[in-house]
Amino acid sequence: MTSNPVLEAMLRRKSIRHYTTEMPTDDVLTAIVRAGQQAPFAAQLGSLLLSRKQENNPFGAPLLFTICADIHRMECIMQARNWKLVTNDLSLLLFAMQDAAYMAQNIVIAAESLGLGSCFLGNAPYRAEEIANEYSLPQRVFPIVQLTVGYPDENPPARPRYPIAFTLFEDTYPELSEERVNEAMSVMDNGYLAQQYYARANYKIPLQGEREETFTFENYGWTEHMCRKWGQWFSSPDDLLVQFEKRGFCVTKT
Amino acid sequence: MTSNPVLEAMLRRKSIRHYTTEMPTDDVLTAIVRAGQQAPFAAQLGSLLLSRKQENNPFGAPLLFTICADIHRMECIMQARNWKLVTNDLSLLLFAMQDAAYMAQNIVIAAESLGLGSCFLGNAPYRAEEIANEYSLPQRVFPIVQLTVGYPDENPPARPRYPIAFTLFEDTYPELSEERVNEAMSVMDNGYLAQQYYARANYKIPLQGEREETFTFENYGWTEHMCRKWGQWFSSPDDLLVQFEKRGFCVTKT
Repeated sequence: MTSNPVLEAMLRRKSIRHYTTEMPTDDVLTAIVRAGQQAPFAAQLGSLLLSRKQENNPFGAPLLFTICADIHRMECIMQARNWKLVTNDLSLLLFAMQDAAYMAQNIVIAAESLGLGSCFLGNAPYRAEEIANEYSLPQRVFPIVQLTVGYPDENPPARPRYPIAFTLFEDTYPELSEERVNEAMSVMDNGYLAQQYYARANYKIPLQGEREETFTFENYGWTEHMCRKWGQWFSSPDDLLVQFEKRGFCVTKT
Repeated sequence: MTSNPVLEAMLRRKSIRHYTTEMPTDDVLTAIVRAGQQAPFAAQLGSLLLSRKQENNPFGAPLLFTICADIHRMECIMQARNWKLVTNDLSLLLFAMQDAAYMAQNIVIAAESLGLGSCFLGNAPYRAEEIANEYSLPQRVFPIVQLTVGYPDENPPARPRYPIAFTLFEDTYPELSEERVNEAMSVMDNGYLAQQYYARANYKIPLQGEREETFTFENYGWTEHMCRKWGQWFSSPDDLLVQFEKRGFCVTKT
């Protein structure tokens, strides 16, 4: 198969949750942030908070980035040019989240290329107020995701993905037949079980309500894990809507 | 400064809007899609539509990807496991858009590493219904962004970015003083003007209402362009909310 150092970096990348105490140099930090900045954008609506307070960072990571959708900065520029922003918040967030995510993913792979590991933390939006206090964020800056970065003190394998035919659809979105779904589930579940992913993490998502636990680490796989998340968590959008509102965003208002 | 083939690919990447007629091989296509798939995820909530109908693709590009937030596929898996999805749509879209964007950005840089150029098309969400018809999308699949890919028939320079100090904030989000804002604006405007970006594109966003055009391609820069977008476009979220609804999403409902 076609290969080169860029493709290799992408294919070997996995989440790292154990780090050495080595602090990346300023030169390395600058290199990965510059690579992040150069990602495509709608309007450079992503900004980066950084903490090098290793003792407070998740997993004791030397670097913690908080990637934000930053409308404040654009509003400062518009004010300097005597313009008032009129675009609705839903559209702004849609563009800003993409700008932020493209930048974040460049940082992930740039870091990988320099021997650094990383791990995304997806709950930042639900902790937006807390993060806003920590970093003294102005209104109209919203934390999308956090990313720990540092030199790996573990070397797990790259994790399984769906078969390519379950992700890439040419011309027409196909019917996802029972057979196709089962095949994709097997690839993911057998892959995670072979790597003992949940056994090593010693973690199963607890079942709520009447459901009784019948799974062991012998058969608790990726699709069961997913079902327990999306079948039990975050039933209401209210917490998230409140976090947006506290940061000065309303997704339904003109 | 620290460098390697990965950082170089990221730093030289720019949007390409002119392509040769050469069709990337299946091997190349597979390589960039696999690199895309291997991006980090919350739940593999991104999927890819592909069109190789070059004559219909924007810029006549050999490849057109439509990157989707795909909840349908996860619901098929949950159904196979006898689970019902309960997570609210706003949270799902927040995670799915990130999964989709991380995958998309890996594809951009993987393509770049193989000599392919690319260009994001950000208006896909506003054309969701049209795209859904074109690719026979099931409900609960939402197009986030499109990406043209092909061998470049132009070689513009990489585009300017904000100074790093206007993007990376350590520990505390700083006050964006007039001086800082002006400096960042100069970097962007002088950079785009030096590259004659808008002059070559022969495009200025028209002014609406009472505002009179006083700019020429000698002084129409990036920040003016941004002000005309976010100061004039998309004042209401209604069109976008309707597109979400038609695809089976409601961002405010439990």
